[in-house]
Amino acid sequence: MRQLYHYWICPFSRKIRISLREKALDFKLVLENPWKRRHEFLVVNPAGSVPVLEEEDGLIVIGTYAITEYLEENHNKPDFLGQDAISRAEVRRLTEWFDIKFNKEVTQLIITEKVIKRFSKSGDTDAATIRCATQNIKHHLQYIEYLTDRRNWLAGDNFSYADISAAAHISCVDFFGDVAWDKFPAARDWYSRIKSRPSMQIILKDKIAGLVAADHYGDLDF
Amino acid sequence: MRQLYHYWICPFSRKIRISLREKALDFKLVLENPWKRRHEFLVVNPAGSVPVLEEEDGLIVIGTYAITEYLEENHNKPDFLGQDAISRAEVRRLTEWFDIKFNKEVTQLIITEKVIKRFSKSGDTDAATIRCATQNIKHHLQYIEYLTDRRNWLAGDNFSYADISAAAHISCVDFFGDVAWDKFPAARDWYSRIKSRPSMQIILKDKIAGLVAADHYGDLDF
Repeated sequence: MRQLYHYWICPFSRKIRISLREKALDFKLVLENPWKRRHEFLVVNPAGSVPVLEEEDGLIVIGTYAITEYLEENHNKPDFLGQDAISRAEVRRLTEWFDIKFNKEVTQLIITEKVIKRFSKSGDTDAATIRCATQNIKHHLQYIEYLTDRRNWLAGDNFSYADISAAAHISCVDFFGDVAWDKFPAARDWYSRIKSRPSMQIILKDKIAGLVAADHYGDLDF
Repeated sequence: MRQLYHYWICPFSRKIRISLREKALDFKLVLENPWKRRHEFLVVNPAGSVPVLEEEDGLIVIGTYAITEYLEENHNKPDFLGQDAISRAEVRRLTEWFDIKFNKEVTQLIITEKVIKRFSKSGDTDAATIRCATQNIKHHLQYIEYLTDRRNWLAGDNFSYADISAAAHISCVDFFGDVAWDKFPAARDWYSRIKSRPSMQIILKDKIAGLVAADHYGDLDF
């Protein structure tokens, strides 16, 4: 069966898990703790990072960029990029927004402080960095409000990789209760719509050894 | 005419400049200093980052991810991703390697310290960060040696976005003389082949106000 090497609180892994389920592609999860740099895994992916997708025919696709484009080229029902050049450019612009900008300003900071430092015993949590990240989230929620005020989904009429990427990142941060939802009702409505999808529901039910989710994390009404 | 909003020492802008020339697509460069956050540019790209491509028909494509995939979908002669799923996954894996991993470990550190801090007057250059970045480069040059020992170009038989991304990043760092070429002759040979391409030659001749390139920067023999 198709296998996805992933880590629980990794936005890029979550993005591929959501995409595979939305496309009704069966897969088995293989847990990989990237900070352990397991030798057998480094042979597969010298970068040591997840996600890595292994297809039944043995094809190995490495990294969020390669996997999402591979899925669109080979399993594109439903399609998450759109059909015309304008839609595809807009979906990819916003995917990059969340995978690069949001990741740098928010997700990576929170995950480093609250997950990696803890499990890899590589230092104490830095409260100032967490404060900075939770401040940064607000600008992104504001931008989500701006977009959803004008569109059905982030990139336009249809659910796309823009929504999947944004939700994957936000869910990793929301796990720790670090999102100020009460100030951003329209962003909350958009996220609630995504939470209600079966592809997301299953992720929100993950039990992660050593970590406890915030109270509202799995609730549709939050 | 087609326009490319770019900044001189931005690896992502260089990547698109190389790609457009390799594809023989005419374009005009428009200089944008991203740290100035010019209002008219933020209206076009709320992230405030370059590159941004504006096509003659008015289509605006934002960000290195959207632009490279757009170019492959709409101007794919020559093609820089390959034709089959294995090649495309490999090119995209290595593109992500340089655009994310190399950028985080090397380019972004050097550019922040040597360009952005200077021009935006946002602090003093930190020597320890630069030392760390120049140490990190070595692992990447070693990986380039490993790849070119087994292949004609980084991702396989053909020149691809993997080579373009790698060269774009390395050229930004090499501008400051921060690459230890003497220890990595095979990586130097690979880079020399790219330097000799007209698409790269024109970039190496850029005159950048306020910055002086290292002596060997433009030379084919270095």
